[in-house]
Amino acid sequence: MSTSTYDQLCRHVRQTAVFATIESLLYWDERCMMPPRAAAFRAEQAAQLAGLIHERQTDPRLGEWLNELAASPLAADPHSDSGTTIRQLKRLYEKKTRLPRSLVEELTQAAVLGQQAWQAARRDSDFAAFAPHLERIFRLKREQAEAVGYRESAYDALLDDFEPGELCSHIGAVLGRLRDALVPLVAAIVESRRSPPVEILHRHYPREAQERLGRHVAACIGFDFHRGRLDVTAHPFCSGIGPQDCRITTRYDESYFNSAFFGILHEAGHGIYDQGLREEMFGLPPGEAVSMGIHESQSRLWENLVGRSLAFWRYFYPQAQQAFPEALADVPLEAFYAAINDVRPSLIRVEADEATYNLHILVRFELEVDLLQDRLRVADLPGAWREKYQSYLGIVPPDDRQGVLQDIHWSGGLVGYFPTYSLGNLYAAQFYAQADRELGGLARQIEQGEFTPLRRWLREKIHAVGQCYTAAELVERVTGRPLSHEPLVSHLQAKFAPLYGLG
Amino acid sequence: MSTSTYDQLCRHVRQTAVFATIESLLYWDERCMMPPRAAAFRAEQAAQLAGLIHERQTDPRLGEWLNELAASPLAADPHSDSGTTIRQLKRLYEKKTRLPRSLVEELTQAAVLGQQAWQAARRDSDFAAFAPHLERIFRLKREQAEAVGYRESAYDALLDDFEPGELCSHIGAVLGRLRDALVPLVAAIVESRRSPPVEILHRHYPREAQERLGRHVAACIGFDFHRGRLDVTAHPFCSGIGPQDCRITTRYDESYFNSAFFGILHEAGHGIYDQGLREEMFGLPPGEAVSMGIHESQSRLWENLVGRSLAFWRYFYPQAQQAFPEALADVPLEAFYAAINDVRPSLIRVEADEATYNLHILVRFELEVDLLQDRLRVADLPGAWREKYQSYLGIVPPDDRQGVLQDIHWSGGLVGYFPTYSLGNLYAAQFYAQADRELGGLARQIEQGEFTPLRRWLREKIHAVGQCYTAAELVERVTGRPLSHEPLVSHLQAKFAPLYGLG
Repeated sequence: MSTSTYDQLCRHVRQTAVFATIESLLYWDERCMMPPRAAAFRAEQAAQLAGLIHERQTDPRLGEWLNELAASPLAADPHSDSGTTIRQLKRLYEKKTRLPRSLVEELTQAAVLGQQAWQAARRDSDFAAFAPHLERIFRLKREQAEAVGYRESAYDALLDDFEPGELCSHIGAVLGRLRDALVPLVAAIVESRRSPPVEILHRHYPREAQERLGRHVAACIGFDFHRGRLDVTAHPFCSGIGPQDCRITTRYDESYFNSAFFGILHEAGHGIYDQGLREEMFGLPPGEAVSMGIHESQSRLWENLVGRSLAFWRYFYPQAQQAFPEALADVPLEAFYAAINDVRPSLIRVEADEATYNLHILVRFELEVDLLQDRLRVADLPGAWREKYQSYLGIVPPDDRQGVLQDIHWSGGLVGYFPTYSLGNLYAAQFYAQADRELGGLARQIEQGEFTPLRRWLREKIHAVGQCYTAAELVERVTGRPLSHEPLVSHLQAKFAPLYGLG
Repeated sequence: MSTSTYDQLCRHVRQTAVFATIESLLYWDERCMMPPRAAAFRAEQAAQLAGLIHERQTDPRLGEWLNELAASPLAADPHSDSGTTIRQLKRLYEKKTRLPRSLVEELTQAAVLGQQAWQAARRDSDFAAFAPHLERIFRLKREQAEAVGYRESAYDALLDDFEPGELCSHIGAVLGRLRDALVPLVAAIVESRRSPPVEILHRHYPREAQERLGRHVAACIGFDFHRGRLDVTAHPFCSGIGPQDCRITTRYDESYFNSAFFGILHEAGHGIYDQGLREEMFGLPPGEAVSMGIHESQSRLWENLVGRSLAFWRYFYPQAQQAFPEALADVPLEAFYAAINDVRPSLIRVEADEATYNLHILVRFELEVDLLQDRLRVADLPGAWREKYQSYLGIVPPDDRQGVLQDIHWSGGLVGYFPTYSLGNLYAAQFYAQADRELGGLARQIEQGEFTPLRRWLREKIHAVGQCYTAAELVERVTGRPLSHEPLVSHLQAKFAPLYGLG
């Protein structure tokens, strides 16, 4: 009886997931291929498909099936495939159905208007024009949190959309310790007054050579082009269009090496995660990524822990010199390595380096928590932003365009999303340190161009596990310890101490 | 009352059309972009969407709305937008609902198995292995015809899927007269023993230069790249992914000029039709193409009537010489013009020239009519094929691979499709002759690179009319005369008489 109910449930959910992959194709095509005039109609196509998917996700039969199954032996082991499927689908169904339709519609409308207002406000560096939208959005996000419920604080309910099961108090404590270690590290780097030769990264890097090298390196670390593509777009992303169809994107800047190269490594990291999910579990929670933070950990691991390491460039630098003889023939490996690891407090998050990046996130995380909890008024946000930049990074934006108006997230209703970037960095360092111990010295493998052991380890320990464990459980299961700021801080200290002659 | 029913109907049908455009995107992506391993999952995505579309097209509410509306004032004028909408949707709904589900499924299965068997049979040139499939397909097509009904002969019911409202007796008479004029024309060309310098078309034509020239010419004749794209595929097609999103495709052969160049002109012709449909009528019959034959007339008009004319090359040949200096610098315009108009009886339809092409179609049309009406047994088909090739083109295929097994159509259940290719040629010549009269000498405009008057005329007379008239009505409305073989025969005689020194 409950087996056939379970089959029915899985069939329904899998079919919904198939429609969701079509939604991904619409999105990928819009960003990479679609002719410009087709935008309005594309919105209509996407809205219609989203409506269909929403209908299927809130189908009352789902609720009935899940109630029946929650009490069945199939749900007994919460980490088994069936237990995970039932637990996670029930969680999602309840969240979805607890949100009143009127609130969903108001949130959607507020996000559309908010993004429009944000674009104009950013262009004009006019925070006041955006403030009423931001107030409305935070009010609606508080309503959303109350509607779906939470354990400790309203923020938990929002965080749960991106990092299921996490608590503000828990990540706040870890991120706070990270901040307390990073602020003095960055200050010491600034005080060292060493300045790597970053101008070499701004020489001429022909686009075709960038693409060839990027594809080659992505394939070397394990992105499978038989089951994926690499295309060009304005704001790079990675999109799963099916279990055998993962598409990454990048943009090329002929006068800046880092943009496409590390962008491709980053997206390939996301792609390798998607390609490592269990195909036979496609569309069901055991075949889906755990959380935004864990997804980000896979991109950051390849981009930073691997891709910005000296071992990595010991292997690839001769190939890079061949690809860009004009730019790099006269540049020694050590200078190149120092340049791609330049640390420099800056105003714009998306351009930040490995060390300062998390401080940008901390500013946003702390402010959005305060806004949500009414400890900070929207009108006071630009001032609070400047204060935090001064205190964490020692710099202050000259205007709001380069300050509080730089990110799209809040304007589109994404509250609780920012911390997943730093969680990704934390998870990445903790996973990498564990893999390094278990695989017996990753640097030696990497400098020989051997990426398969690391990729297989990630696949077995993380990718193939899907949602059978929460992010926090997974970290503890894989590394034997709860999430900590220490692996990331150790990694950054070990890397930057020699580069900047720190004590 | 009936106005709100009409609005409901239009909304439902338009939404179905939006889903159909998503289906087109899946297809385009599969042919142009999809990574190879994603094929199996793509079939699942397409099947799920097709199921959804079929459900919507056979929704019983449609039948109720249409019955109510058929008697309403909105249906009074059969050529008005509302009258056309009601008439055409009723026709389609009745056709769809008359087909038993079991027959639809059997046809789908027979087509899948038929195509597989055909591929193997063509590879091995083994007609006997394919024959049982072909017998089954023609049996099922007869059942289909009986289920949906017809006016005179079973073939009418099948033809109606591609050329709505046409009759076998009518097109058979026109095509017969065309055949009787073409056979002696082709024979006279062969007897002339003149042989244009076709080897110049097989020189080296670099791919990038082909693409640049192809895009340029497509844009010149009016294909709007703000609302469309050109991509590469193995078997070129044109696909409408929305009212502002028409995508054409081609393939490049560096050692053959014609393949991509005339292919792009052909697909751009289809694309210009799609781009000329009335956007505000998107998804409804007044905003959709009349028939396969009329669609083909638009591609053939630009490819052959315009693109293979001397006037066209008087304008574009200097640009082609600039694009391919190595291949064409020493070739005079007249030699090039003669080469691209080489007439030569050959075995393969898709490689045939403007004069012999229709004889290939006549062979297929006459044979499929005979097969459907049981006047010819499948076992006797290869022999009948050879006899007709001998009598119409004076050549006989050495094996079935180059004979009866060359086309995919029948194996996939497409019976009644072939004549639309020749109808396209007939319509094209008749429209072109009329435009020439009304616009006062097209050749003079074309040799000055002026394509806008012709394109506007086509848009107003044909594209924007949608399905408000049947193909036969449209021809008579636009040209003042019923469909005739004469304009095409006159065009071919006028072109080839000087080229081949005919009397």
